[in-house]
Amino acid sequence: MQFTCEQRLDGGVREREFTLDGIPGVLWTPGSASAPVPLILLGHPGGLRRMYPRLAARARHSVAAGFAAATIELPGAGERPASTSAEQARADLLRALAADEPVDAIVDRLVLPLVGRAVPEWRAALDALLALPGIRGPVGYSGGVIAIGLRLAAVEPRIAAALLFAGSFVPRSMFEEARRVTVPLQVLLQWDDEGNDRQLALDLFDAFGSREKTLHANMGGHTGVPWFEGDAGDRFFARHLR
Amino acid sequence: MQFTCEQRLDGGVREREFTLDGIPGVLWTPGSASAPVPLILLGHPGGLRRMYPRLAARARHSVAAGFAAATIELPGAGERPASTSAEQARADLLRALAADEPVDAIVDRLVLPLVGRAVPEWRAALDALLALPGIRGPVGYSGGVIAIGLRLAAVEPRIAAALLFAGSFVPRSMFEEARRVTVPLQVLLQWDDEGNDRQLALDLFDAFGSREKTLHANMGGHTGVPWFEGDAGDRFFARHLR
Repeated sequence: MQFTCEQRLDGGVREREFTLDGIPGVLWTPGSASAPVPLILLGHPGGLRRMYPRLAARARHSVAAGFAAATIELPGAGERPASTSAEQARADLLRALAADEPVDAIVDRLVLPLVGRAVPEWRAALDALLALPGIRGPVGYSGGVIAIGLRLAAVEPRIAAALLFAGSFVPRSMFEEARRVTVPLQVLLQWDDEGNDRQLALDLFDAFGSREKTLHANMGGHTGVPWFEGDAGDRFFARHLR
Repeated sequence: MQFTCEQRLDGGVREREFTLDGIPGVLWTPGSASAPVPLILLGHPGGLRRMYPRLAARARHSVAAGFAAATIELPGAGERPASTSAEQARADLLRALAADEPVDAIVDRLVLPLVGRAVPEWRAALDALLALPGIRGPVGYSGGVIAIGLRLAAVEPRIAAALLFAGSFVPRSMFEEARRVTVPLQVLLQWDDEGNDRQLALDLFDAFGSREKTLHANMGGHTGVPWFEGDAGDRFFARHLR
């Protein structure tokens, strides 16, 4: 893990960009030395530069609530080499959605390889991040892509709680995997998200094996998650990571 | 409104029982004099004595969060004269549910007269309560019976926010009324509540006309609402009643 640049954000947050085996990432920690704090991994749909303003806002929130936050670029996104098969699957998906055709096979082609590549990368990032001073487990996962958060929660024992954003497609074959997730979950669903399959999100929430799972559905469209869900997320992680 | 008895609860909460036109009720206020606080009406399924421990716990929570809380007995429940038609409808409903038969017509017979009688009583209680020193609007409604909360939110302009418990039947004819509800809503749904129609609750949430509406679904069965929803409810009312 090489740190490539560092800056201070408002509120005394220390932001460090890094690369890990060629994958760009960002780490946010408290500005002043403190006892080690639990880590929250910030999920996103890919494209760190494009997502930066929202990621930095979420990270500032997390650090203010007593956590460290980190994220890495997704395979095929941002400055990483594009995947022609993923680009093709994404184009096919948009076409099928526009034509109201079945999408299950395309979702499998798009999401399963992404999850298969991303999850080992996030676990390697965890190894490196938890070796740094000032950061400790247990670890939370927060955000989308929900299929990545699902797989991480299912296979990575250091993930103790997950706040998942139900805003993207999940292969039907992963519903069995959802039953094996047992950590506390908070699932955010934008009820009026036109690009999202609401019934799939509800079915997936139902499938999760966790004894403590909470669904928060709100209005405001895909990107309109209400501000108070930031506070609710902090409280969820405070209950389970402290 | 006649106060019939008064006591102090833990945490300096003042509890007063009252009757209003023969209807028993309870009022909880801060123990020491303060500027007037907004009022939260506590809904319940009927039977004040039976429900008292849970109502008092919710009321203490509300007073600690800076509100007054009050409730009245439902028509036909507790010490109030029983309604033979309601008893009959309740028995018919249980029989129909056990036999997996359609319940819509029975729900209409059970719930519509209850709502029709209860809502004017709650509005009269509001008149009396808001005339007391130390209590002010805007007013929140919190709890079940969801059909009563729905009607109150639709017709009573002093209700500025409602936290509804989706744990009982709602006549299909009231879905049109739900579209006319515009105040901020938080709807609690116990996801694994076997006695509840989950799809009806989701359809009803969808029907509400409010631009700010949030669904919180949790595990734990009908009576197992997690403790952290008490705090979430306080924060919801703090956003909208202060």
